[in-house]
Amino acid sequence: MTPLTPGSTSSIHDQFEELAAFNSDPDGGGITREVFTPEYMEAVDYVSGLMRAAGLDVRLDEFANLFGRLEGTDPDAPHVLTGSHIDTTLNAGRYDGVLGVLGAIAAVRELAAGGVRPRRSIEVVAFAGEEPRFVAGCLGSRALTGSLARADLDGLHDRDGVSLASALLDAGLDPDRVGSARLDPRTIHCFVELHIEQGGVLERRGVPIGVVTHIAAPHDLLVTLRGEASHAGATPMTLRRDALSGAAEAALELERLALASPGGTAVATIGVLRARPGAINVIPGEVELEVDIRDREIGTRTALVDGFTQALEAIAARRGLELEITTITRDEPAACSEIVVDAARRACEELGVKHIEMVSGAYHDAMVMGVDVPMGMVFVPSVGGISHSPLEFTAPEDLDRGVAVLAGTLAGLTR
Amino acid sequence: MTPLTPGSTSSIHDQFEELAAFNSDPDGGGITREVFTPEYMEAVDYVSGLMRAAGLDVRLDEFANLFGRLEGTDPDAPHVLTGSHIDTTLNAGRYDGVLGVLGAIAAVRELAAGGVRPRRSIEVVAFAGEEPRFVAGCLGSRALTGSLARADLDGLHDRDGVSLASALLDAGLDPDRVGSARLDPRTIHCFVELHIEQGGVLERRGVPIGVVTHIAAPHDLLVTLRGEASHAGATPMTLRRDALSGAAEAALELERLALASPGGTAVATIGVLRARPGAINVIPGEVELEVDIRDREIGTRTALVDGFTQALEAIAARRGLELEITTITRDEPAACSEIVVDAARRACEELGVKHIEMVSGAYHDAMVMGVDVPMGMVFVPSVGGISHSPLEFTAPEDLDRGVAVLAGTLAGLTR
Repeated sequence: MTPLTPGSTSSIHDQFEELAAFNSDPDGGGITREVFTPEYMEAVDYVSGLMRAAGLDVRLDEFANLFGRLEGTDPDAPHVLTGSHIDTTLNAGRYDGVLGVLGAIAAVRELAAGGVRPRRSIEVVAFAGEEPRFVAGCLGSRALTGSLARADLDGLHDRDGVSLASALLDAGLDPDRVGSARLDPRTIHCFVELHIEQGGVLERRGVPIGVVTHIAAPHDLLVTLRGEASHAGATPMTLRRDALSGAAEAALELERLALASPGGTAVATIGVLRARPGAINVIPGEVELEVDIRDREIGTRTALVDGFTQALEAIAARRGLELEITTITRDEPAACSEIVVDAARRACEELGVKHIEMVSGAYHDAMVMGVDVPMGMVFVPSVGGISHSPLEFTAPEDLDRGVAVLAGTLAGLTR
Repeated sequence: MTPLTPGSTSSIHDQFEELAAFNSDPDGGGITREVFTPEYMEAVDYVSGLMRAAGLDVRLDEFANLFGRLEGTDPDAPHVLTGSHIDTTLNAGRYDGVLGVLGAIAAVRELAAGGVRPRRSIEVVAFAGEEPRFVAGCLGSRALTGSLARADLDGLHDRDGVSLASALLDAGLDPDRVGSARLDPRTIHCFVELHIEQGGVLERRGVPIGVVTHIAAPHDLLVTLRGEASHAGATPMTLRRDALSGAAEAALELERLALASPGGTAVATIGVLRARPGAINVIPGEVELEVDIRDREIGTRTALVDGFTQALEAIAARRGLELEITTITRDEPAACSEIVVDAARRACEELGVKHIEMVSGAYHDAMVMGVDVPMGMVFVPSVGGISHSPLEFTAPEDLDRGVAVLAGTLAGLTR
């Protein structure tokens, strides 16, 4: 008997534990496993072992996207792709992304254990770089859908100034061959991704499964307001050009506009505010805002961005501030494919599992894949809606239910 | 003939240039001469030389406060103290503080050149540490008025973690003897400080001299608002506890309250805002604000602080945020002494110099000295109201006019 790969026969619950050991900051309290780091590449090896033990044929592309294929009875039929990512942000939890990869392997094992060989082949994928180590996210799926060019690899840098190209080289990959990662969409029937739900909606509704119908996409802005830095004591209130007061007005106006957006699904956030020079006795002369605006429909999102832009212009004019607005990213919101939504819905019904249909406010590799192929997503609750934190937690029974629904969905899609 | 100290016969304009050479960051574009650094102690030596050359008896106390005394005809009469500081913030200009020291020496020389020996003695002082290297400002004047205890020297630290006590030791001073710096207020008739005006008020009014009637004092607060950091895409608008939105409301309310304050002299500023965790896709879970509130009257300032506190409580309650408010500093606003105001006013009239009476929004050593002795201030314009910047500039004729008014004021006060 050949020795089993570590973890190969372990339960998915043990595998979360085992994968968490690939951590470049074990003292930080959470998991830090950024794409293309040594710890990441070791985790890819570990997951390759799990795939092999599940009977899958393993392949790593030139962007370190990892594939494990179960051949169907009709190898020429377009296959079903399922998966997510195993890279993390800094000091993160153990379920975001990871569930979609370990869960896909477990679902394929579950199908195999049931003795049913699917007609369509199934490929499990672990996308490289969903989290924004290099500022932009979903790099692996962008490479697969042909929207990541060789030039981007030199232009994108991490917070330490390492370019994406040199990170690839360090990981033993060839940046000049990134184009070879491109998938032919005609070979793919559809893509489905299992993920934790990061807004606390399922938990509050007391429902264990969310079937995603739309993925909202961000339009991200960098807004700079420039006034005049002057003495906090000596400058009378009426003579100020306080950039922070202008930014405060803008923040409240953004909140008001998002709440009033007609679809009811728009969200808008200022996650980063830098006030300069940043001394208690100096009126801020410059404020930078990083603004994230999302909606499931491009029309309402554009209206929100336009409304915010007009509000900024009015505030800047009234307060004598200079204004600069730059787009950081702008992705297209994606509607999930009816074939995937329907398969997930039926799987829930067959299993007797309560579910709701919902919008994903977070974006995922599924959003990027949706440009090329029909796609959909299945959500399980995350306690308190917490993610990107060591406190991220999904109950074992919720994990198992997610895997069962994914297995049922795959069974339906591969028939 | 004994060799002259460098700069001893130079004009005050050359002396600004010479003093600017004592700079621990000459490549920074401005002047960095923080108290107790080697560059600071060398600058103290340079100014001692100027004092000696002006015929003053020089004394350095145990806190490195530098005194130069011109004995009057009635040595037992309480003397007139005049001066300011020669320490700077980071990357600062050449006039803030320095004018009050070089100008006082020049004014004493001008009086001596006029052949008038004053009845009262005059002491020129360069206070150590007016700028907040150790967070708290006006350390030298606090030592002179007995409000700086030995224990404070261990408790105050600079941004590199160096305690005030060890900075004193490094400068060759004995922290245990800080108490010996205490002046007996009965020996002092009054204190007068010449300074640049940092709010741009004189420039806008087109008047070359400001006679200060009140020094506003800051009540500084650290405000923390805590909500819930959650996913910017996945968390619906109605389920958010966004600490930054709360902070934005607070900032606008503070501005509104300051503008509505009945005296018309209140100012309120949020100079520092830290939003955490500080990622574009995460709703800020915690915001810290450093708030500076000033007025010339303690009553209106207290009302403003109270109004802001109530507004914060209402905002926090409505938005489900936790609120913490801590006082960082709280100084007493000081009214200038009528004897000093009157002497300055008469000096302007005798010289035929236009002047206005005004409130100092910035605090100065004069505010601290005011606890013990009658005090006043004379302002000259600073272009654009700019200070704490390499761009700080006062025209040579405005400097000369300031020195002449100070000389006239000292003549009146020492009669």
